[in-house]
Amino acid sequence: MTKEQLHEIYAVCGADALFLEQDFLRRYVTGFYSTDGYVVYDGEVCTFVADARYFEAAQNALAGNFVAVKEGTYAAAMELVRGKKTLGVPFPYISRAASDRLEGEGFALVDCMPALRTAMKVKSEAEISLIGQACDIAEEGLLATLPRLKEGMTERELAAALEYEMRMRGAEGVSFETIVAFGAGSSVPHHETGDTKLRFGDVVLIDYGCKKGGYCSDCTRTFLFGDDGKHEEFKAHYALVLEAHELAKARIVAGMTGKEADEIARGYFREHGLDGAFTHSLGHGIGLEIHEHPMLSPRSEEVLLDGMVFSDEPGLYFAGKYGIRIEDSVTLKGGKVVSFMHKTEHGLLIL
Amino acid sequence: MTKEQLHEIYAVCGADALFLEQDFLRRYVTGFYSTDGYVVYDGEVCTFVADARYFEAAQNALAGNFVAVKEGTYAAAMELVRGKKTLGVPFPYISRAASDRLEGEGFALVDCMPALRTAMKVKSEAEISLIGQACDIAEEGLLATLPRLKEGMTERELAAALEYEMRMRGAEGVSFETIVAFGAGSSVPHHETGDTKLRFGDVVLIDYGCKKGGYCSDCTRTFLFGDDGKHEEFKAHYALVLEAHELAKARIVAGMTGKEADEIARGYFREHGLDGAFTHSLGHGIGLEIHEHPMLSPRSEEVLLDGMVFSDEPGLYFAGKYGIRIEDSVTLKGGKVVSFMHKTEHGLLIL
Repeated sequence: MTKEQLHEIYAVCGADALFLEQDFLRRYVTGFYSTDGYVVYDGEVCTFVADARYFEAAQNALAGNFVAVKEGTYAAAMELVRGKKTLGVPFPYISRAASDRLEGEGFALVDCMPALRTAMKVKSEAEISLIGQACDIAEEGLLATLPRLKEGMTERELAAALEYEMRMRGAEGVSFETIVAFGAGSSVPHHETGDTKLRFGDVVLIDYGCKKGGYCSDCTRTFLFGDDGKHEEFKAHYALVLEAHELAKARIVAGMTGKEADEIARGYFREHGLDGAFTHSLGHGIGLEIHEHPMLSPRSEEVLLDGMVFSDEPGLYFAGKYGIRIEDSVTLKGGKVVSFMHKTEHGLLIL
Repeated sequence: MTKEQLHEIYAVCGADALFLEQDFLRRYVTGFYSTDGYVVYDGEVCTFVADARYFEAAQNALAGNFVAVKEGTYAAAMELVRGKKTLGVPFPYISRAASDRLEGEGFALVDCMPALRTAMKVKSEAEISLIGQACDIAEEGLLATLPRLKEGMTERELAAALEYEMRMRGAEGVSFETIVAFGAGSSVPHHETGDTKLRFGDVVLIDYGCKKGGYCSDCTRTFLFGDDGKHEEFKAHYALVLEAHELAKARIVAGMTGKEADEIARGYFREHGLDGAFTHSLGHGIGLEIHEHPMLSPRSEEVLLDGMVFSDEPGLYFAGKYGIRIEDSVTLKGGKVVSFMHKTEHGLLIL
């Protein structure tokens, strides 16, 4: 980010200094990844406190950036805030133990997460580029995996193959636990990938993603492993989910609330008497974390803006039978939805 | 765990009820895995509050167990503690936001983590069995990966292959980010796996593990990818690390402190004038988390007991040249160290 953006967060938070010790927040501010360290911003100087393991790499990575690098650990970070009265820390992420420790040092704590969250919702070009790369890897990984599907393989084996193909294409890891569901398991939105074996005619639902430069991708595809001729109802429902997915892409515009966006898909399902089978929200923000803001849900008053990145993932679930979800990671650009995902099939794939 | 063990934790903590909402702690108490939910124990009844997604599966899994299952979310958990004055929550894991919310409901909070940590250090047979399985998968995964090493492959590709082989053998995922270091990268204990290509004669260091039933394995192997005849010093240092590793295995006994255990390896290196190159601790506890107690470090006064599981991982690091670490996950049984790792080579492997 720029120093101006950081200062804006600081100003909104209103504390004497921002004090960040969470991996993803350090990365958000500095762009540099480490498993330990502190970012301190006192309204004038932003300092990344790195221990001996990271100090040299951080100095090289942050040369010419607005972030100064200082070698040390907690004590070094404490020196930077000496004399301050209030510290801005993220209440949803700092532990009670860490919070007690800072209060024990005499600081009053202010939650800086609302200010950070507002800033984090709108992505920079660099962030959008990384999310795009994570989406490309995810789609290319799936395309490389599909030919490996065979009868008798387990959900877990398919997940292993998909994760391998993403890793080979530069993914740092998964952005969340890969969901692979065969048959009736697809009717459970958060199905636990297990040892169920793939059979001819199975519905296959894969919800997965990877990380690149710390940023997440999120994708779901549902397809048939061979057509056993028993899937007429499934195909009709698939067409509805696809239409809801495409309607959302076409009609979501900047300035709309998350609630209005959600209603595009939900209303469409309602017209078909199926809104009861759409058991979750249309989408969620995506960034350094897999679930961020904005929320695209029936209660969300958040306004969608250019540069936001979120999922478009309508679904229909019929317990014990099957579930269908079609999900892209998308962004808003020029007021309109632009999907990151063009490589994999959106129409019903029958392998 | 048994209800008696849970009651002991409750009694030591001293709060009116234990209130746990962390994935790994819910799993520790109930053995059941979910991404959401609450475990409440009021000294008499232990209840797992599961939302609609998990309720049925939890009921089936916990039938006949001492844990009652109740459907609901936060409000349902709150009902269970109505009228209580103090709640035991884990301060190092509960967020400040969640802590504020409970205090806002009028509860005084007590840190239950010291009591939990003491209990969690000593593993049950069921826990040791899961750790053993995670170790088997890790070793078998490495054995399946070694034949796939070839000149020009990147660290990331090797990590991808290893993670794939572990997944195919039933691993739920990695227990921490896989470290693969080629050549001089091995001299950095927390090397970031990257795009460095494997060359003939390279030192290869792999520090990795997987999860099974939520429990972690942790293993490090260092070897040569071909012998280019330039590794006499490396081989001498390898022999010292192996000796330190074996000495620790042979001499660590129940009743010893973590500090005394650490000193076995550190003292051996000191005799060879090399303790300065041993830049970390001998070991750490392993369980549902990859870093638990006891610590086997120069300052640890924790007493090692039968049933504890920890790493034995001495290492020597020569900046810009190479690093060597040999790590097993081990347990104490009958007062002596028993390693979980017998399938992979401990002596210097030259591929």
